[in-house]
Amino acid sequence: MKTAPRAQDVAALAKVSQSAVSRTFTPGASVSEETRRKVLAAAKMLGYRPNALARSLITRRSRIVALVMSYLDNQFYPLVIEQLSQRLQKAGYHVLMFIAEVDEEADGVLAEILDYQVDGIIMASANLSPRLANSCADLGVPVVQFNRVMEQRGRGRSKISSVTSANESGGRMAARLLVERGYRRIALIAGLENASTSIERERGFTDELAVLEMRLWNREVGHYDFHRAQEATQRLFAGDERPDGLFVANDHMAIAALDMLRQELNLKVPEDVGVIGFDDVPQAAWGAYRLTTVRQDLEPMIDATVALLCQQMTGELRPADIVVPCALVERATVRQRPPSTA
Amino acid sequence: MKTAPRAQDVAALAKVSQSAVSRTFTPGASVSEETRRKVLAAAKMLGYRPNALARSLITRRSRIVALVMSYLDNQFYPLVIEQLSQRLQKAGYHVLMFIAEVDEEADGVLAEILDYQVDGIIMASANLSPRLANSCADLGVPVVQFNRVMEQRGRGRSKISSVTSANESGGRMAARLLVERGYRRIALIAGLENASTSIERERGFTDELAVLEMRLWNREVGHYDFHRAQEATQRLFAGDERPDGLFVANDHMAIAALDMLRQELNLKVPEDVGVIGFDDVPQAAWGAYRLTTVRQDLEPMIDATVALLCQQMTGELRPADIVVPCALVERATVRQRPPSTA
Repeated sequence: MKTAPRAQDVAALAKVSQSAVSRTFTPGASVSEETRRKVLAAAKMLGYRPNALARSLITRRSRIVALVMSYLDNQFYPLVIEQLSQRLQKAGYHVLMFIAEVDEEADGVLAEILDYQVDGIIMASANLSPRLANSCADLGVPVVQFNRVMEQRGRGRSKISSVTSANESGGRMAARLLVERGYRRIALIAGLENASTSIERERGFTDELAVLEMRLWNREVGHYDFHRAQEATQRLFAGDERPDGLFVANDHMAIAALDMLRQELNLKVPEDVGVIGFDDVPQAAWGAYRLTTVRQDLEPMIDATVALLCQQMTGELRPADIVVPCALVERATVRQRPPSTA
Repeated sequence: MKTAPRAQDVAALAKVSQSAVSRTFTPGASVSEETRRKVLAAAKMLGYRPNALARSLITRRSRIVALVMSYLDNQFYPLVIEQLSQRLQKAGYHVLMFIAEVDEEADGVLAEILDYQVDGIIMASANLSPRLANSCADLGVPVVQFNRVMEQRGRGRSKISSVTSANESGGRMAARLLVERGYRRIALIAGLENASTSIERERGFTDELAVLEMRLWNREVGHYDFHRAQEATQRLFAGDERPDGLFVANDHMAIAALDMLRQELNLKVPEDVGVIGFDDVPQAAWGAYRLTTVRQDLEPMIDATVALLCQQMTGELRPADIVVPCALVERATVRQRPPSTA
């Protein structure tokens, strides 16, 4: 094995001081054009690169956090990438992207992730099997599930952390709003059947309907996908007796439903149908939609994720589950209905 | 300096074979629960981590590509992140995210980037000063500018590559469409004044207007920002004589303009004003907008970026500038106007 060339090798070859080599490779540092040219020529000849990864072998820190995601078409996730990247960057870490297959466990990319010697792992819109999640913890690599929780398959508590919205209580808010506003034939479009966000939002929604002595009129699955959510909407409204209220498990699908209802089915929202989404992505506020929705409060979610991860990367591995409250955002797709004539 | 513990140290302490250690840290490999437990305990005690970064010191490859971006609210960029990550992942690389300040040169993050020993750098929606870009090349780290080109400040050709759309010819298409459809008072909302995309699109647009013996009616700057694009729209339409056609330098701002025109100014699109954007982001096709636009062909742009970078990371540093053609996508915001009564 050939030893990597060192700064002193470059200095010797270029006939300059070692500090001149260091300054050449420090952006912004002062060095004469002549010296710089000599150093670069010597570095090129030797194949030298500054600040070798050796540093992370000494400190045993790569300052890399893996971010595993399975799909980005939901407009919630670009914000997550941007804000996580920014916040971790300030804390001295950078985000390494791993794209997993939608709707499958991300176990396949784990070997690759560990190969990069990451200091921590954030799983967002992706699931890791409990067994592998726990073996990361065993290796001293903290894992935070962002916006997902892991199913507990028995065997006590998981060794990994999670940061989520209060999805169940958000689902309850949606049900209460529709019922209070006078909607009576209430339908739902679920997301992915195995995603905790969808499961919890639906559970809260139907539980609250039961409390209010209502039953779910109808239900379809949109798989958190734009096109499939439009098909789900079509199926829900195909019969003679149509729903008059609709809860959609995220805004991405709710916007798809609004387009289908208005443009294809020629229904008026909120006059013929009330629609409520979940997330409050920026697009929900766009003038053509003005979607009433349940807001996931991204900033505290990001804060908690970065705090949890940093604490565990530098200190004790003590997993925690943090739940951030949701809030109702009323815009123009749900309104008070006239008293029923039934 | 303490030497990092090796697999054989773990095997010795755990009293198992070295292969058992290796299997314990290979996700999916077969190993008994008993052996696994012993190996993990020994690894934890020694602070051992598998597949040490040592590998990249030997091969001198980190398999990391830095992706530098300055803002993600434009819906074009989430697609870029997803597709670049996916394509590079297939080629054996992963994307490390760096967020730079909007509208500033990204020189500040360069030291950090080089510190990660990246094999290559992609600058998307961010600029690097020519001096620093060239010093990356001198270090043997290829740089590809994605969707931006560098200003040539004299001194011959840059050492870095670029992949862009044919922005100028796209701007020409937009001008031709509006004029052919009978629009006569044609205004423009520019993006960032120093971004090559905005400069080239505007140049193509005004050049083609001149060819068609028309002049730009009015012009405002939206800074590629949703809110500022709405303000720009308001200013353009504040006078008594309003524009009847509008070219907006990207879809993100064009959607903002449509909301302003329809919801606030009570104008009809395309009856009162024709609007054409640029990019063809997924939202441009949403039912409530159906925006006529100039399509940037993302897939060949990503293909070219990955191909260029891989070729330069593994072989010769030969910079190239690749320009991908645009295409007109006609939807519902521009239509044939009745013959002028003026």
